[in-house]
Amino acid sequence: MPNNIKKGIAASKGYAIGHVFIKADKEVEIVEKAISNIEEEKARFETAVEDSRKQLIKIKEKAEKDLGADKAAVFESHIMLLDDPEFAGQAKSMIEDKKINAEKALSDVIDNFMTIFAGIEDEYIKERVADIKDVGGRILNNLTGNGSGDLSDIEKGTIVVANDLTPSDTAQLDKDKVVAFLTNIGGRTSHSAIMARTLEIPAIVGLKDIVSSVKNGDTVIVDGIEGEAIINPDEKTLSEYTARKEEFEKKQEELKKLISIETTTKAGKRVEVCGNIGKAKDVEAVLANGGDGVGLFRTEFLYMDRESMPTEDEQFEAYKHVVEKMGKRPVVIRTLDIGGDKKLPYLPLPEEMNPFLGFRAIRLCLGRKDIFKVQLRALLRASVYGNLKIMFPMISSLEEFLEAKEVLKECMNELTKEGKSFNENLETGIMVEIPAAAVNSEELAKHVDFFSIGTNDLIQYTLAADRMNEKVSYLYNPMHPAVLKLIKMTIESAHKEGKWCGMCGEMAGDEKAIPTLVEYGLDEFSMSASSILTAKELIMKA
Amino acid sequence: MPNNIKKGIAASKGYAIGHVFIKADKEVEIVEKAISNIEEEKARFETAVEDSRKQLIKIKEKAEKDLGADKAAVFESHIMLLDDPEFAGQAKSMIEDKKINAEKALSDVIDNFMTIFAGIEDEYIKERVADIKDVGGRILNNLTGNGSGDLSDIEKGTIVVANDLTPSDTAQLDKDKVVAFLTNIGGRTSHSAIMARTLEIPAIVGLKDIVSSVKNGDTVIVDGIEGEAIINPDEKTLSEYTARKEEFEKKQEELKKLISIETTTKAGKRVEVCGNIGKAKDVEAVLANGGDGVGLFRTEFLYMDRESMPTEDEQFEAYKHVVEKMGKRPVVIRTLDIGGDKKLPYLPLPEEMNPFLGFRAIRLCLGRKDIFKVQLRALLRASVYGNLKIMFPMISSLEEFLEAKEVLKECMNELTKEGKSFNENLETGIMVEIPAAAVNSEELAKHVDFFSIGTNDLIQYTLAADRMNEKVSYLYNPMHPAVLKLIKMTIESAHKEGKWCGMCGEMAGDEKAIPTLVEYGLDEFSMSASSILTAKELIMKA
Repeated sequence: MPNNIKKGIAASKGYAIGHVFIKADKEVEIVEKAISNIEEEKARFETAVEDSRKQLIKIKEKAEKDLGADKAAVFESHIMLLDDPEFAGQAKSMIEDKKINAEKALSDVIDNFMTIFAGIEDEYIKERVADIKDVGGRILNNLTGNGSGDLSDIEKGTIVVANDLTPSDTAQLDKDKVVAFLTNIGGRTSHSAIMARTLEIPAIVGLKDIVSSVKNGDTVIVDGIEGEAIINPDEKTLSEYTARKEEFEKKQEELKKLISIETTTKAGKRVEVCGNIGKAKDVEAVLANGGDGVGLFRTEFLYMDRESMPTEDEQFEAYKHVVEKMGKRPVVIRTLDIGGDKKLPYLPLPEEMNPFLGFRAIRLCLGRKDIFKVQLRALLRASVYGNLKIMFPMISSLEEFLEAKEVLKECMNELTKEGKSFNENLETGIMVEIPAAAVNSEELAKHVDFFSIGTNDLIQYTLAADRMNEKVSYLYNPMHPAVLKLIKMTIESAHKEGKWCGMCGEMAGDEKAIPTLVEYGLDEFSMSASSILTAKELIMKA
Repeated sequence: MPNNIKKGIAASKGYAIGHVFIKADKEVEIVEKAISNIEEEKARFETAVEDSRKQLIKIKEKAEKDLGADKAAVFESHIMLLDDPEFAGQAKSMIEDKKINAEKALSDVIDNFMTIFAGIEDEYIKERVADIKDVGGRILNNLTGNGSGDLSDIEKGTIVVANDLTPSDTAQLDKDKVVAFLTNIGGRTSHSAIMARTLEIPAIVGLKDIVSSVKNGDTVIVDGIEGEAIINPDEKTLSEYTARKEEFEKKQEELKKLISIETTTKAGKRVEVCGNIGKAKDVEAVLANGGDGVGLFRTEFLYMDRESMPTEDEQFEAYKHVVEKMGKRPVVIRTLDIGGDKKLPYLPLPEEMNPFLGFRAIRLCLGRKDIFKVQLRALLRASVYGNLKIMFPMISSLEEFLEAKEVLKECMNELTKEGKSFNENLETGIMVEIPAAAVNSEELAKHVDFFSIGTNDLIQYTLAADRMNEKVSYLYNPMHPAVLKLIKMTIESAHKEGKWCGMCGEMAGDEKAIPTLVEYGLDEFSMSASSILTAKELIMKA
């Protein structure tokens, strides 16, 4: 590979050609100074905190407008950190106790957090550490007059290059001006990668040394398909990629023709191509991309970023909104899949050594029927407004499914007594994501209305390889013969009992997997809305 | 259940009837005192540390004699803690800095450790916290003149009752006097449970409130089979259990007759019943219990409790010792299964969110061929001294097995060049412990010489349930239809290719599973030495 080409992780697809703007990490050197006027120093610190608060409120408002309330929620927790006695409060006490300057006090508090949490792989803690760094750096910048690292002055056609982008950085990006971004660190699921896909601009992350490889003003081609950045390309390459960019954009336009087309395989089988959603408002993207339904509604997002459990009525409204919007199209709603690495602030759970093999999803719901029933009642009440199906996650044995149905039955009886209506014949199915469910699918198929194969987990458990762990992610292979055999078994078991079988993991949208899945007779493919049209095209060719 | 019966976790089998001795947790109340003579206070602290050192050296010597060097190693690390600048050293600085009494300083240091590590589920850290508590408590007792909580004064026929037993407690237990023990906390794999099995005395752990339910001198029946303690039983119960105890002991004697008997199923199939070992000297117990061979030599114990990797020669001696002792009997040696939750102090590995799905066993060995080759060379060199077979753990795909064989071939070439002899035809096989290996066993069977099913992991991955996690351990079911199907598939795949199939997980010795395993045609059962005779009897009846 020529040394003007840098290879990283393709985080958001598409092509861009533009000029580099390097967002440098401003490392402020902190020197300890003895302070005589403590009150004055504390006031200086408070001013910096208040400046930070004003900046964060602005950023939050911009994020709400540009990115939506859920993406803006992180800034609310940043603002809360400013009032946290363990954080800003502790820095203030340190100024008082040790009679030192505010910069040194704050930087010691930040260092303390880093030392305590260093090496802990918990996602929740990692996120908190990132927040502390982001907010702490902002206060430090305000103390030293170093500015807030503004990205607002950039020109049209800019490619932002950085070691990493914090939530406050990305919230400030102006989509009219920034055509792509490149970072040294991060993976496909890192904050900056998710943000790039939301903004629909190409991005490459994990480039390792991109910051030191370019200078401001360099021309760079960003290939968000292959994950390659080409620095100061020659004319030939430039015109080649200009053509590719145009072709990609043309292709995206062409795919739009498939929006209203029913998907039929070469053999003449009609299949459904659906979207996965996390929030009620995501249905719009599914419809805009011609989805035949919702194949997976991840309801845990309704429970996140709040102070307490969502009530039955709140949930009912969300489910009703989705099924109404989707009209006659099916909406498969997965019951709460929380626990393990996905935590709720108001639901304390024990720390686990292996959260992926732990107390989560249906296990937690059957252990906490009080929580489970609130959701099931909301689902039942929403079922009269459209084509709602209930799906239970992490089922490993028939007993669990029957117990879940028993709880559902209880809720039906309650609603009947209360004179509230619901669809008595709504379909109930399970995620097939634990190897035991696939191996035992013949027995399970007799009892469920449908299967949906959750490949992300199924692959991970079948190969005993955590796909988030970069030391073993090379083992994570959707085309492993054992994985394919389990998928085939599951589809065949469903069909033998006259039931339908879908798939809602990433594999359902995977170009390399689609021909095999069509051959096995998969009935429903569910994926992120942005992949639906490409998948439709591939399925129709298979 | 009558309220004089307490139910806990059966930790070591057998029956005992005896009198209670409560080992109370001496809670010393710590009061902060200002100190004027700092040097005197520091000297007082140093005397307590030196007293603790003398006690620990004695305990270590006793443990070495009674329990063997590996069980005594924990006291070596306790002695090292006394010199740790982060621990005893820090307490000393605190006396100096804060001018407080030694008791308060030490207790603050201990509390600090507890706070930092609270809620962290890492096994390694937990162990370290337990060590700090044990050693810290000892120094505190020496400071306050509270004695070291001696268990040496007890009478014959004593049942020790405690909240928990520390390593230093159990090392002091006199087997001639202590007939059983009962603890409030702990599980089957806790230190005290393992110690009970080593001492071969019945024990029940996790009884929750046994300490407050008995008083010194109470008569108690300990049923180490059912995990029940019966307090002050009536005459009828007492004579009933006296009879059970005699029957159990008679039965143990009778089983000894099976030592020299070949094991044949009712259908006339000859099967092998072997032992699992961790250290070279464990072969003696396998032979004493009539084992047909070693079905699993867990070589990671050779790598533990040391400062550096064992050399090729050290390993060679250990393997040679085992195969020579076993004569013509087969010895299946598993290559290094380290990583994840099993750590080595001299091999730094990244922290992992899900160590059971992480970088371990064959994954680590193929990534660190320098380490792997040392072991393979030692194994090859030992192969001329007996019937040695090599087994690779955590194989998920054919590629991994072929790559491991390739490394083995390299080692063979090296040894040939060096003029060192080895058995060119030694058998190589794999652990079937990842669902993918079982599902794909037909293909794998074409290439391996044998399979050995590792049920502990296979069950855990197939059901996506960490068996060490008490919130989901109810899901861990060896008789789950999916688990049984995978076991059947694996055995059938082996036989189809004319290969043999063994099992080296706990299920191989499980009374409830043995009839099914015999029916499936399992060729070899490998288990802890103490279970061999019971298993032989069950297999012959099946």
